[in-house]
Amino acid sequence: MGAEDHPMTRAAWTPVAHTAWTISDPFWAPRRATLFATTLASQHTQLRESGRLSRLGIMPADPGRAGSHIFYDSDTAKWLEAAAYALAERPDAGLRADAEAVIAGYERIQLPDGYLNSHFCAIPERRWSNLEHDHELYCLGHLIEAAVAWQAHLGCGRLLACCRRALDHVWRRFGPDGEPAYCGHPEIELALMRLWRLTGDERARRLCRLFVDRRGRAGWFARERARGQARSDWGRDPDEFQDARPLADERHAVGHAVRCLYLACGALDLAQDEDDAPLAAAIGRIWDSATRRRMHVTGGVGSSAHRESFSSDWDLDPFRAYNETCASIALMMLAQRLLAEGPRADAGDILELALHNGVLAGWSLDGDHYLYANPLAVDPGWDGKTKHWNGRAWGREGWFGCACCPPNLARTVAQLGSYAASTRGDDLALHLLLAGGLAAGGWQLALAGDWVRGGRLLVQVQAAPAGGSLHLRLPGWSTNTRVIRDGAELPHTEPGYLRLEGLQAGSRVEVIAAMTPRRIHADPRAEALTGRVALWVGPLIYCLESCDHQHGLEALSLPEAAALSLGDPDPQLAGCRPILAEAQALKTGEGGPYRSQRPACEPARLTAVPYCLWNHRGPGAMRVWVRGG
Amino acid sequence: MGAEDHPMTRAAWTPVAHTAWTISDPFWAPRRATLFATTLASQHTQLRESGRLSRLGIMPADPGRAGSHIFYDSDTAKWLEAAAYALAERPDAGLRADAEAVIAGYERIQLPDGYLNSHFCAIPERRWSNLEHDHELYCLGHLIEAAVAWQAHLGCGRLLACCRRALDHVWRRFGPDGEPAYCGHPEIELALMRLWRLTGDERARRLCRLFVDRRGRAGWFARERARGQARSDWGRDPDEFQDARPLADERHAVGHAVRCLYLACGALDLAQDEDDAPLAAAIGRIWDSATRRRMHVTGGVGSSAHRESFSSDWDLDPFRAYNETCASIALMMLAQRLLAEGPRADAGDILELALHNGVLAGWSLDGDHYLYANPLAVDPGWDGKTKHWNGRAWGREGWFGCACCPPNLARTVAQLGSYAASTRGDDLALHLLLAGGLAAGGWQLALAGDWVRGGRLLVQVQAAPAGGSLHLRLPGWSTNTRVIRDGAELPHTEPGYLRLEGLQAGSRVEVIAAMTPRRIHADPRAEALTGRVALWVGPLIYCLESCDHQHGLEALSLPEAAALSLGDPDPQLAGCRPILAEAQALKTGEGGPYRSQRPACEPARLTAVPYCLWNHRGPGAMRVWVRGG
Repeated sequence: MGAEDHPMTRAAWTPVAHTAWTISDPFWAPRRATLFATTLASQHTQLRESGRLSRLGIMPADPGRAGSHIFYDSDTAKWLEAAAYALAERPDAGLRADAEAVIAGYERIQLPDGYLNSHFCAIPERRWSNLEHDHELYCLGHLIEAAVAWQAHLGCGRLLACCRRALDHVWRRFGPDGEPAYCGHPEIELALMRLWRLTGDERARRLCRLFVDRRGRAGWFARERARGQARSDWGRDPDEFQDARPLADERHAVGHAVRCLYLACGALDLAQDEDDAPLAAAIGRIWDSATRRRMHVTGGVGSSAHRESFSSDWDLDPFRAYNETCASIALMMLAQRLLAEGPRADAGDILELALHNGVLAGWSLDGDHYLYANPLAVDPGWDGKTKHWNGRAWGREGWFGCACCPPNLARTVAQLGSYAASTRGDDLALHLLLAGGLAAGGWQLALAGDWVRGGRLLVQVQAAPAGGSLHLRLPGWSTNTRVIRDGAELPHTEPGYLRLEGLQAGSRVEVIAAMTPRRIHADPRAEALTGRVALWVGPLIYCLESCDHQHGLEALSLPEAAALSLGDPDPQLAGCRPILAEAQALKTGEGGPYRSQRPACEPARLTAVPYCLWNHRGPGAMRVWVRGG
Repeated sequence: MGAEDHPMTRAAWTPVAHTAWTISDPFWAPRRATLFATTLASQHTQLRESGRLSRLGIMPADPGRAGSHIFYDSDTAKWLEAAAYALAERPDAGLRADAEAVIAGYERIQLPDGYLNSHFCAIPERRWSNLEHDHELYCLGHLIEAAVAWQAHLGCGRLLACCRRALDHVWRRFGPDGEPAYCGHPEIELALMRLWRLTGDERARRLCRLFVDRRGRAGWFARERARGQARSDWGRDPDEFQDARPLADERHAVGHAVRCLYLACGALDLAQDEDDAPLAAAIGRIWDSATRRRMHVTGGVGSSAHRESFSSDWDLDPFRAYNETCASIALMMLAQRLLAEGPRADAGDILELALHNGVLAGWSLDGDHYLYANPLAVDPGWDGKTKHWNGRAWGREGWFGCACCPPNLARTVAQLGSYAASTRGDDLALHLLLAGGLAAGGWQLALAGDWVRGGRLLVQVQAAPAGGSLHLRLPGWSTNTRVIRDGAELPHTEPGYLRLEGLQAGSRVEVIAAMTPRRIHADPRAEALTGRVALWVGPLIYCLESCDHQHGLEALSLPEAAALSLGDPDPQLAGCRPILAEAQALKTGEGGPYRSQRPACEPARLTAVPYCLWNHRGPGAMRVWVRGG
């Protein structure tokens, strides 16, 4: 079992510790090397220079720079959590010192009654005055997640001790005998479940239950507003806060996407540990709503910039797609929790899709630039939110006023291995086919290949528990995946989890997926995608960038009959291969805006590149969905 | 010459008075009969019952009902203006009494220094404190327009006398020696030009010049904000107020659509009367921007619900189209002013297009229900502005808190004839081919036919001035219009204005346009219309309504090869003929949201109806742009 071994959970399957892996995957290893070499240090610099650490005693070079939003502890905590995963994998004295100085800051500022929040510890008279908007429980949740990581992976319990004192405080204030409150931004729920699973402290699980059950029933935010405490125009619509109805009655993914999915994660953890089938069923409905009717083809969710929210079924406009990077990460987190109930193809597929597209697009190859929103079509200078020109080029930025995404990316990539596999007793499930070594649950595997770019993985079994099964995910994007076990090709390898039994040291299983570039058609109800196709190869969704084309992307059209081929691996595209096609460019500007004739066209070469790598070759236009049939 | 005969204008062509017409057009006469029988009286009731007239001494049944927005004088004034046109055409003692009571109210409330505004006369200490948002000059402009109409068409100068006293006041306050202010909502400019043209009062024209020239230069709104007077979040972007740059430097239609086009109207009047070619050229650029790159196929403009504004070129999403009814009326008003420079095909075509589609859709057949926004695609319960379900059915309403559109519709339909023709000396131009009688500029014409539904008009000349020409508009929507003069068909009848000379009493000119249902293709840069076509017959744009279809409109597809035919005239559709086609319904819900296969389809019958008549057969879905080729 892994370091964070969930002794208290009743979920059937447990993610492996990320340290169970030695990742040498040719696609992922360079990105993770950048994470360790650049991202974590640069994020610490950004945290410090933005003033986020100043109340912890770590001052910016220019002390005049102040905080940003008031929930900056969550940015700091996610970075701390990422640092724990990184340090568990490869010691780094500088990173460790920076992180421990932050932890020492939290130790220092914690109030005698256990209250912990670097913004409000300085103004304690204002604490807990506005749970709707002040994010105090959200911040504490992220601190708990970091504390769990430091304890489980580094054996360092300093932050955990702070968090348990904070739990004492929250239990008194909001426990069974306290105020029936809950947080405007769910997160504490899943953090409490991690704390419960690590420590067995029942108060954590019971608090999670209270926070889940009060939502949609207790009307806490209305009480706060009645007391005149609301300090924002958010919150007029209780759906935005997942507070319109009890969660067990929910039928759709609604409101702010990250809040919705974080809540679903915590609630599903709870439902699994308390055998709450109705609650689990509601989370299943939210998952279906999010992924089957409200998800962009990149695994981006929260399509509306209006409150960063889910909107309605099939509202999938590529230009207006908001798709916060954190929302795709939250979708991965929920997929991981669904997989705790057992291998299921849709969860595995969407885990892979979101990671390689909606999440990864948010992180630059150089490691210290990020996208917050991830639209599927961009024109330079164009603000998809207000549909006005703002003159700015779209591109990744080094940091944000609300900097939730960068450290969320860091902790996700740092613990990549824990998403990739899970165990149940002697069984092992492989969700992401990473190359490297894996030792978990009695299994020792050597995995070789270049799955993302080549679609091949060779699994060499070095040790296997007797009677254990290997559940190998065959991806939905490959219609004819071949599986060769010890030289013999298996019949009937449908997409989904292939259960292999009887493996033992020396067994070899090769997986060969079809890496054919293909068109994707959307359900006709996604009307904004009418007359368009997307392109993909393997787990990567592709897009067009203006730098590869002589014609405007709005005019390019891919005829139904046009063949797709793959170009040579391109060093500018992290070694990925572009998709090429002989396409057409429609003529624009002929005959006024509306005319009886179909536009004329001329031949044009189309080049598509992985969406996760777009915007690395200068500013320009981008389209995921291409005009065509 | 007509009643409002513009003695001071230097524009070449002058609209005829609407009273020059006796409109018996089979499409328009019933609508105008409803205007006279229902609309004007019901609007008076709405004005009264909403409290808009209470400060004029006309109280609602429930005096507790109060005003709405603070620029309600503009609603009242547009209704007064419509009443003048109506009364000039057909006396109505009740309407006259209601209107004169309103005028008497304005006489009563006017302050001794000439200030006139029924909201601020009661709180004079607040007048002129916030020109950015308080709309005082906008309201006065509409009162001036009403006053001009009452003087010109009814010979009643009571309101004009009030307005001239108000002009004295405005001249002192904001004239050459006054504060360099201008209104947040342009309108006063065009009203001042009407006043100048009617009365010859040079101060009106000079004030218009000041208001036009200060805009984009004087920074008035920034001064107000610096004094802490802004009471709204509008105005952060000076483009919204057409205040970002001098108007003569403008290159695009920007900001709030109605403001933009009202300003363009007043400025073009000014440019014509002062021979200001650079200013006229700027208005030409705004017209081109609005109509060639930012106009929906219905003649709807102001595509963005964000501040009811123009957005960027080719941002023509049918679902999110805002298209305020007033904005299409303003487009007609600007077209009319461009036609004052001489017949030009684009202005005539767009005048007809906007009137019969974007404007008329805003007005119910029963005469007292209205649309404020006019999207090109609607699903019931769906709020196109926030992209959230609000559970409400889309449909016309009896009134609005901001009720600009209903009386604007009324005054437009009441003065329909003045849009239809203009004169220059002995020349007559026919822009709208209405059936009825026309006597203007020495011409007497009897016009027979059903142009809108039948595409035929017979012009019988009963009198013609010697040497005068008739400029007959042949519509852009007919590629092969036939013109038969005294039994002989003319060759070479391209769309545009056909100049006919030598007509005399007894001459007969028959115009026969092609009433073939046809597809419209958008310029490829309008990417939201990818893979879609619109349908039209004659001047009417068509749409699909869910009540005519068994399949969801999102799934209907019109194959490129499918023939279009016309059904029988439908009494439920004001005698218009639906467009019929053998189409397809794509299957939805098969294979997840994204799949490699194109969706399967089955045969489905398609029925399209005129957009201007949609939403008369119960709530439901609507689409102007149909999936297809």
